[in-house]
Amino acid sequence: MVAPQLAAVLSKLQTLSTSDHASVVSLNIFVALLCACIVIGHLLEENRWMNESITALIIGLCTGIIILLTSGGKSSHLLVFSEDLFFIYLLPPIIFNAGFQVKKKQFFHNFITIMMFGAIGTLISCTIISLGVINFFKEMDIGSLDIGDFLAIGAIFAATDSVCTLQVLNQDETPLLYSLVFGEGVVNDATSVVLFNAIQSFDLTNINPKIALQFFGSFLYLFLTSTLLGVVVGLVSAYIIKTLYFGRHSTDREFALMMLMAYLSYIMAELFYLSGILTVFFCGIVMSHYTWHNVTESSRVTTKHAFATLSFVAETFIFLYVGMDALDIEKWRFVSDSPGTSVAVSAVLLALVMAGRAAFVFPLSFISNLSKKTESEKLSIREQAFLNAVYKVRAHSIARECNYDYKHYHGRSYQHYDPSTPKSVSVPLLGSGQDSFDDSLSGVPRPGSIRALLTTPTHTVHHYWRKFDNAFMRPMFGGRGFVPFVPGSPTERSVHNPPQWQ
Amino acid sequence: MVAPQLAAVLSKLQTLSTSDHASVVSLNIFVALLCACIVIGHLLEENRWMNESITALIIGLCTGIIILLTSGGKSSHLLVFSEDLFFIYLLPPIIFNAGFQVKKKQFFHNFITIMMFGAIGTLISCTIISLGVINFFKEMDIGSLDIGDFLAIGAIFAATDSVCTLQVLNQDETPLLYSLVFGEGVVNDATSVVLFNAIQSFDLTNINPKIALQFFGSFLYLFLTSTLLGVVVGLVSAYIIKTLYFGRHSTDREFALMMLMAYLSYIMAELFYLSGILTVFFCGIVMSHYTWHNVTESSRVTTKHAFATLSFVAETFIFLYVGMDALDIEKWRFVSDSPGTSVAVSAVLLALVMAGRAAFVFPLSFISNLSKKTESEKLSIREQAFLNAVYKVRAHSIARECNYDYKHYHGRSYQHYDPSTPKSVSVPLLGSGQDSFDDSLSGVPRPGSIRALLTTPTHTVHHYWRKFDNAFMRPMFGGRGFVPFVPGSPTERSVHNPPQWQ
Repeated sequence: MVAPQLAAVLSKLQTLSTSDHASVVSLNIFVALLCACIVIGHLLEENRWMNESITALIIGLCTGIIILLTSGGKSSHLLVFSEDLFFIYLLPPIIFNAGFQVKKKQFFHNFITIMMFGAIGTLISCTIISLGVINFFKEMDIGSLDIGDFLAIGAIFAATDSVCTLQVLNQDETPLLYSLVFGEGVVNDATSVVLFNAIQSFDLTNINPKIALQFFGSFLYLFLTSTLLGVVVGLVSAYIIKTLYFGRHSTDREFALMMLMAYLSYIMAELFYLSGILTVFFCGIVMSHYTWHNVTESSRVTTKHAFATLSFVAETFIFLYVGMDALDIEKWRFVSDSPGTSVAVSAVLLALVMAGRAAFVFPLSFISNLSKKTESEKLSIREQAFLNAVYKVRAHSIARECNYDYKHYHGRSYQHYDPSTPKSVSVPLLGSGQDSFDDSLSGVPRPGSIRALLTTPTHTVHHYWRKFDNAFMRPMFGGRGFVPFVPGSPTERSVHNPPQWQ
Repeated sequence: MVAPQLAAVLSKLQTLSTSDHASVVSLNIFVALLCACIVIGHLLEENRWMNESITALIIGLCTGIIILLTSGGKSSHLLVFSEDLFFIYLLPPIIFNAGFQVKKKQFFHNFITIMMFGAIGTLISCTIISLGVINFFKEMDIGSLDIGDFLAIGAIFAATDSVCTLQVLNQDETPLLYSLVFGEGVVNDATSVVLFNAIQSFDLTNINPKIALQFFGSFLYLFLTSTLLGVVVGLVSAYIIKTLYFGRHSTDREFALMMLMAYLSYIMAELFYLSGILTVFFCGIVMSHYTWHNVTESSRVTTKHAFATLSFVAETFIFLYVGMDALDIEKWRFVSDSPGTSVAVSAVLLALVMAGRAAFVFPLSFISNLSKKTESEKLSIREQAFLNAVYKVRAHSIARECNYDYKHYHGRSYQHYDPSTPKSVSVPLLGSGQDSFDDSLSGVPRPGSIRALLTTPTHTVHHYWRKFDNAFMRPMFGGRGFVPFVPGSPTERSVHNPPQWQ
């Protein structure tokens, strides 16, 4: 019968939902605050102690206090976000933009060091934290936790995201340190995914060489497949735009396709239980190396700035939310219930996280320095100390983090992300033109010492990569100087010249 | 105690949710289909019977069939969206972009005609449909509906959105028809909001002149406040960017601010129970007239293309979803339960919708034509017939619409939006430079007949508006030729020249 259906429609028409309106109010305040962050961040740009992220944190904190006072101490939140918001909407644009605008030369030049810090370092750190937690927590009144639980704690606190620290570092001033901190953040996502899978699937009560080998194989598989997926999606986008769009460019379609395919790479990685962060990061690198050179000039301007803006808004959003979240009563309640235990647990974890980092930063830096030819390429003791201190901040609110992590692993246990230390990457805008590998690096040096032994692979790989890229990849997928002149739009200014915007 | 908290965290870590993975699969297929729509739409661009929207509809339909077959006839959906998705994410970019890229000269030149069609036309249509429904439905076995229900049905079917028809029209080929169909779509949103509020708050059992006056006042209030809100937010964005950003431009911040403030205007309208569509549309017009001229050239390229792309993706998304939705079993089930009544109800509503349109299109076109000076400005009988037929398509699936409307009014009864006929606007890209009011129109003609009497206001208003704009608004808020030269970035190419991209 049609009648009941119609009647139901019409009865619904008469009711205005009020709960809906409350969320509209929150959304309004939140968007208005975002605008305020951008304007105030711009005004404070020349102040060296402030940037958008800190502004957003402070504004968030102030708003939290106001909400706390007006609501009579009930909540400091405007909106309560599910962790899906971070993973589905906010994280992908930030990481993709980081890959899209990273200095590829620096990144690949330090690739081996980054891998050491990201993979081996995280593993060492996880082991030390797990062992420490097992020893200390047994003596404290902390309930029954089994070996898997202790390893999970180790994995959570070892998987140090590239924290707010990147907001302090500058890609141009300290390129090596920046590459390392940033690269480690990307790589240790893969490590943490493997660690979690390992904890879930392996029998970890007796660790023998076979399991260690399986674990290593699992990491290698995950790292390679994640990277490969990102590269393949990037290349497909380059190929589609190069082949199908010949002679009939459309900026809207090109931008839409790049955006959607970048996002597709992220969710495809989620689909196959890979590291979405690694995938979308490498997709960004490939897109900036090939796809970006195959589109019209207006598409290049649009994609460069639009991706940067989306990332910038997502970051500001996260910091604003974290600022508000800091005052959340619920999170602090259990701390006040048992202050002694909370402080003890926090202190132990803080000490372990620092010990874990120290245990790998100094030895790995030493090995890494062996492979460097010049002093400027080496990590100074000061820089090593910085790398060690990098994640100290995180440990300050460990009690809160447990809560956070609870929220963030709920339903997504295979991926680590900590909103109190968001993986925010403030990549400065590109200089004039995308940097590809530097020609001066392409000569193959003659090995002769342990230093040269470690140096050679990078340079040899780079040399052959350049040959391969020029002979096969660029003619196939396009890239700088390898795109034939396309008439395109009548007002097309220059397809060949390297772009020169701010 | 910390322990239970920690234990809870860790137990959560062990469980991988499978329902989460199912939605990841759906999201993957959906994004991949969006990419396919863009590529195939591009390939078929020169085919005059196809465009992105039709491609998306067909691909959606095919996917629906495949899902229907593989799921054994259970569902044709990949994702089930709440109506909030349309209202919060998809509709604002489409309408904002329409305002941002609309030919302002055409739009304001036909403003009176648009208002007639949008306000008076919708009212006439609503009255006719309501009266018809009251008479016909009483004779059919259709359950108990009161006077408010019948008026609500009238309001739903009179509030004809600018359907897919805009995909068929071209802003350059038939500018008048395009302006009318599009403008009516924007204005009748305000009308429908007023109609719903009226049905809810007024006692409609006996309609007297006082209630009619109240109703008229309510419409005027809503229309003016919605417009004003959009204009004010647009001007504030222009002022902020002009004042605060002087000498230190940042494309990312400019783009972010424009995007966020445009969105803010939409949700602020929702907050005050105004017409968000009207507000964001006028915000788009003001931003393209002032704000857009205050930013750097790279910001202009980025905003123009990014807004167009977001709108384009949102449209493709909607059409893809509607294509899949067409096969939804649930929707058709109640039709098969009582086919006779369904067909009868559909036929009656179809006839009434057409009668309602005919009742205002021809008389209003006649009045509108009286005010036009040249033959080319008049609506031909053919064009009037087209306007009349415009919304015929909608009525084809009225039984389904009742269901749709049910879904869409649920919790949002004050605003009308119909996903089977999305308010999609394919605005062609701007020509070289933003069009402002044409200088040749600014002379004040001498009135002398009923035609001139109707023509004069528009031209007089336009004349004084230009004077006011040049003397006060542009110096204050910026705009074409009124932005002082800003050194900005070193690579800034030209701030003054009219932009000339594809």
